[in-house]
Amino acid sequence: MKKLSTTIFMVVCMISIFAQTDNTTTKESQNTATQTVLNAEESNPNKMEWMQGFPPPKDKILSAKDGSFFNFPALRYSVNHMREFFPSRRVLSAKDDYYTLRTKHDKEIESIVFTPWNSETPMNWQEFLDANYTDGIIILHKGKIVYETYPAGLTPDGIHTAMSVSKSFAGTIASILIAEGQIDPNKFISYYIPELTDSAFGDATVQQVLDMTTSVDYTEDYTNPNAGVWQYAESGNPFRPDNYTGPYDYYEYLATLKKIPGQEHGEKFEYKTVNTEVIGWVISKVTNKSITELISEKIWVPMGAKYDGYYLVDPAGIAYAGGGFSLNLNDMAIFGEMIRNHGKLGRYEVISKEAVEEFSSGGDPELFAKGGEYPLLKGWSYHNFWWITNNEHKAFMARGVHGQAIYIDPVAEMVIVRFASNPLSSNKYIDPVSIPAYEAIADYLMEK
Amino acid sequence: MKKLSTTIFMVVCMISIFAQTDNTTTKESQNTATQTVLNAEESNPNKMEWMQGFPPPKDKILSAKDGSFFNFPALRYSVNHMREFFPSRRVLSAKDDYYTLRTKHDKEIESIVFTPWNSETPMNWQEFLDANYTDGIIILHKGKIVYETYPAGLTPDGIHTAMSVSKSFAGTIASILIAEGQIDPNKFISYYIPELTDSAFGDATVQQVLDMTTSVDYTEDYTNPNAGVWQYAESGNPFRPDNYTGPYDYYEYLATLKKIPGQEHGEKFEYKTVNTEVIGWVISKVTNKSITELISEKIWVPMGAKYDGYYLVDPAGIAYAGGGFSLNLNDMAIFGEMIRNHGKLGRYEVISKEAVEEFSSGGDPELFAKGGEYPLLKGWSYHNFWWITNNEHKAFMARGVHGQAIYIDPVAEMVIVRFASNPLSSNKYIDPVSIPAYEAIADYLMEK
Repeated sequence: MKKLSTTIFMVVCMISIFAQTDNTTTKESQNTATQTVLNAEESNPNKMEWMQGFPPPKDKILSAKDGSFFNFPALRYSVNHMREFFPSRRVLSAKDDYYTLRTKHDKEIESIVFTPWNSETPMNWQEFLDANYTDGIIILHKGKIVYETYPAGLTPDGIHTAMSVSKSFAGTIASILIAEGQIDPNKFISYYIPELTDSAFGDATVQQVLDMTTSVDYTEDYTNPNAGVWQYAESGNPFRPDNYTGPYDYYEYLATLKKIPGQEHGEKFEYKTVNTEVIGWVISKVTNKSITELISEKIWVPMGAKYDGYYLVDPAGIAYAGGGFSLNLNDMAIFGEMIRNHGKLGRYEVISKEAVEEFSSGGDPELFAKGGEYPLLKGWSYHNFWWITNNEHKAFMARGVHGQAIYIDPVAEMVIVRFASNPLSSNKYIDPVSIPAYEAIADYLMEK
Repeated sequence: MKKLSTTIFMVVCMISIFAQTDNTTTKESQNTATQTVLNAEESNPNKMEWMQGFPPPKDKILSAKDGSFFNFPALRYSVNHMREFFPSRRVLSAKDDYYTLRTKHDKEIESIVFTPWNSETPMNWQEFLDANYTDGIIILHKGKIVYETYPAGLTPDGIHTAMSVSKSFAGTIASILIAEGQIDPNKFISYYIPELTDSAFGDATVQQVLDMTTSVDYTEDYTNPNAGVWQYAESGNPFRPDNYTGPYDYYEYLATLKKIPGQEHGEKFEYKTVNTEVIGWVISKVTNKSITELISEKIWVPMGAKYDGYYLVDPAGIAYAGGGFSLNLNDMAIFGEMIRNHGKLGRYEVISKEAVEEFSSGGDPELFAKGGEYPLLKGWSYHNFWWITNNEHKAFMARGVHGQAIYIDPVAEMVIVRFASNPLSSNKYIDPVSIPAYEAIADYLMEK
């Protein structure tokens, strides 16, 4: 394997892992406009034969150290195999009492046609699956699986990275602890994490961090080699170069961040993954438990998850709250259904109604609009690391780069969970095909 | 964390992982004789607080890159957390039908007193647990758990490295494939792995490799900086230095090995982990499956294992057959019981009687004695990566560095499984306390 540009490759790949990277913009959109990108069928990881054979042929070996594992189309393999590239920590599943979703397949869903945003050409179902490089999708209606397919790479028992959908899990745990009175969202971060007193986060409230309205001199613009996200990635990278001298781990890096001069906390929404790492730290400080244990104890076991999930960990063994979770698609569907039911599965309460209301009630659409990052998401807000559409159905979402999604539509009584490996990382470019499709599915199910 | 001596530390730790290291001898025994080593209670990993806290204090952070994770007493933590240091691959457990061992505790076992080899001072039960730095032990009699304890670090739902006990799992899979007629033990390795035709292994039979009677110019003497085991470790080390230029992965390394001039295959038993990597390659070539999939499909799922296990993987994603398996202690107990019952659990056949006979029938004690490595193990033999005591009870064992063990006594209808983190790596130094204890337990149970 080539050793050239190890550092640069690594950083790019780590960014893709941890960051939503919604500041990336022009370079990425231009690239995809001018390059020929393999389509969904051509880039199917089984067809590409990554890491297949004993040993795999040299040109099919993917590596975290040289960053090759997360270049498209290789990432279509790697999204299903993150633990095979990185150290990881188990999220223990239920062992005696799985929750089984009932199934009532409706093949007619495949007849849905919708029109993407900024387009006049309707798109059919297969085009929808392909355009998003769908690895797996489950659609629930009134708690039953009405549609489920695994077009590429993923298997029903597989474990797929959730990317920034992980943030919504961190936000859910924080919401549970807030509802339990263990965390006061109005307290300053310095109250919970004295180590961050002199950093940008010291005088931010927990709520401002949960809503990403902090003033932090850090960008996730990875066209800029001096962007903070590069240092952030390296601080958590177990394969950083031998001559690396920066912060040893994520928490050390967080402590170096300063506020943007002239900008106060609470002024506007700016999507910055470091906020989630701060909350990961808060919930662990308060409980003295890793987020892997908290998700297992407070969600995975009581919910009846069937498969162990896992988090990638940094050099200090800390789970990456911002993007490190990998889990099973069906387990994610159960989770979505539980949230849609205000914390219950059937009559059994997994988490409290109050905890779900903590995040599903939404944030301030004005601060969201002021951030200016998502002009297409009109009227949306961001709260406790969840995305609130504020559409007629009051739908809300968890979202991760390359197309990971939990879409919960309370009015249509619908939950959609999707794992994908879109060559486009930012949801900014994925939304125009995904959101109108989700809305069309909701309309279809409501008319049934 | 210090970056000095990264390479040397790393290699030492990788050796400890993969190798039984029974050639190590004098240096190690001298060290432990002259140094003050923390006792079992003092070195309890919970007490040492490795990797505890958010973040852990700097002097409590363990790292695979600098090798600190596997120095004693830190290894007492790391044996339970290998996946948190290295890339790994899942061994999927049963999901719908766990096997539950019945339990009938017998506290009187703790009154057993025995005399270690080369000693005249009797040892009591607590001294036995402590002397071996026991992390967990389960004793089965006639299929029931009669004793179970977790003195340090390990929890009942924990996953502990099996070290070279992994070899016996590789040997079991090979035995299954031999019994099924998928592998002919009398064929040359070159028949199955053309890539090894020109290596030491090319003209060795599969059986000679399984019995470690190959002539291979490679030693596991890690007091010798030029020993093969150092290159072997680096070929599989994901954290090797940036300027590393050796073989990319284990299989590339295996292909470089040559025979010992003047020594033919089949002359004597010499414990060399590379043999197991060759068999891992054979079973994967024949089935086109990783050993992780083979153990899941052929043992873990049909047996009803409750917890996912995992293997560490090399830079080509290949599972380390020689020492990479981590698993749950209770699952290992179920496995041992199944083997004791010739492949059955109750009336249900997990693997065929013929497969179990393939290895439990034993090898040639003369070749074992000729090797000269284990003067204390009189009359023993080594066959298909299992250790056969040839004692009156025809007991046989799986063994791994730092005290990992499966001890199956057909006459006493007893199975003992143990995870440990002994500062001594080689079983050579652990046997004098362990083997007479196992025999004393068997005697006790037979007299009940």
